[in-house]
Amino acid sequence: MERMPRYLMQLYRFKTAGIEQVSSQMLGDSLRVKDTQIRKDLSYFGVFGKARYGYNIDFLIDAVEKILGLNHQYRVAIVGFGRIGRALAHYHGSDCHNFCVQLIFDTDPAVIGEAVGAVRVEPMDQLEQRLAAQPVDIAVLTVPEEVAVEVADRLVQAGVRAIYNFTAAELHRYRDVFIENAQIAYGMFKLAHRIAGYWPRKR
Amino acid sequence: MERMPRYLMQLYRFKTAGIEQVSSQMLGDSLRVKDTQIRKDLSYFGVFGKARYGYNIDFLIDAVEKILGLNHQYRVAIVGFGRIGRALAHYHGSDCHNFCVQLIFDTDPAVIGEAVGAVRVEPMDQLEQRLAAQPVDIAVLTVPEEVAVEVADRLVQAGVRAIYNFTAAELHRYRDVFIENAQIAYGMFKLAHRIAGYWPRKR
Repeated sequence: MERMPRYLMQLYRFKTAGIEQVSSQMLGDSLRVKDTQIRKDLSYFGVFGKARYGYNIDFLIDAVEKILGLNHQYRVAIVGFGRIGRALAHYHGSDCHNFCVQLIFDTDPAVIGEAVGAVRVEPMDQLEQRLAAQPVDIAVLTVPEEVAVEVADRLVQAGVRAIYNFTAAELHRYRDVFIENAQIAYGMFKLAHRIAGYWPRKR
Repeated sequence: MERMPRYLMQLYRFKTAGIEQVSSQMLGDSLRVKDTQIRKDLSYFGVFGKARYGYNIDFLIDAVEKILGLNHQYRVAIVGFGRIGRALAHYHGSDCHNFCVQLIFDTDPAVIGEAVGAVRVEPMDQLEQRLAAQPVDIAVLTVPEEVAVEVADRLVQAGVRAIYNFTAAELHRYRDVFIENAQIAYGMFKLAHRIAGYWPRKR
């Protein structure tokens, strides 16, 4: 599942480039993934190519989109309208293809009422009431870490079953709630680790 | 290395809570990681606790910070000052503890000259010249995907050896360059996959 979004993006690039048939070899070479791995990944989800022909690109894009659940539309709430929340609201607010921002919350009176497309930022204390009236499939959590667990509790209590967590808070306390973590700082840490390990050799 | 940043964050929380000694059991319970795994991870990097006592918290924080390379300061360039680039520039511009934003680039005349702290956004066509005068350790790549490979090529050519890639571009063509990927959209895809797999059962 880590690789599947990369497959899809590369297939879109092939499609844009006018390619009609794609082999696991081609896909593998462009992504530095072994072709056997690609065939294994796809066949795991019941997607098979033809020997010496590979896959028809439209068929394969359609199949991978279905695997990723991208044949549905998901209603999204952005919870926390700081800089990252704002970036995500605009990113998903402007396409509304698969992920459609329908609610935005923040505590800051200075941003409450601000609009992203047709969606206005609403006060955090109306979270429960608004989610009851307009349920969402995914909540994007971008509040300060100190309040992250408390806000996540409220989201789950209000019926949210999938949280995209941009805070460093550990949200594994819930049953039957899908959590995906995107702690942006951790990537910097990992680079730092690799650079610091390299420096002594370089010097 | 996936777990190490999580260990550190939890250790900071313990420290804030006034805890002085921490066992692998405590750390494991709070993160839902097995204590044997934690001891294994730490001992891999030469960090050992005492039986029935565990680790002194300051010692362990210091050790994990060193593992993560956080005993150094890293010079950072933000390349692409869109919404995400802006969020990251402000995030790292305001602390400048381990990661210090020293250069920001964009092509848009409307944002060139804008300041984040003491750092001004400079035109992308001065990338090579500015990096030669003021080298950085990490470039954060947040340009549009269509130009991502081209800009990454220029960064590597200019001597950058670590790229934090926020674009969907595949940057595995370089030798001796550390690449960390943070494709924010992929987390949404993974949630979508899980939700879509759950729906048939729910309905």
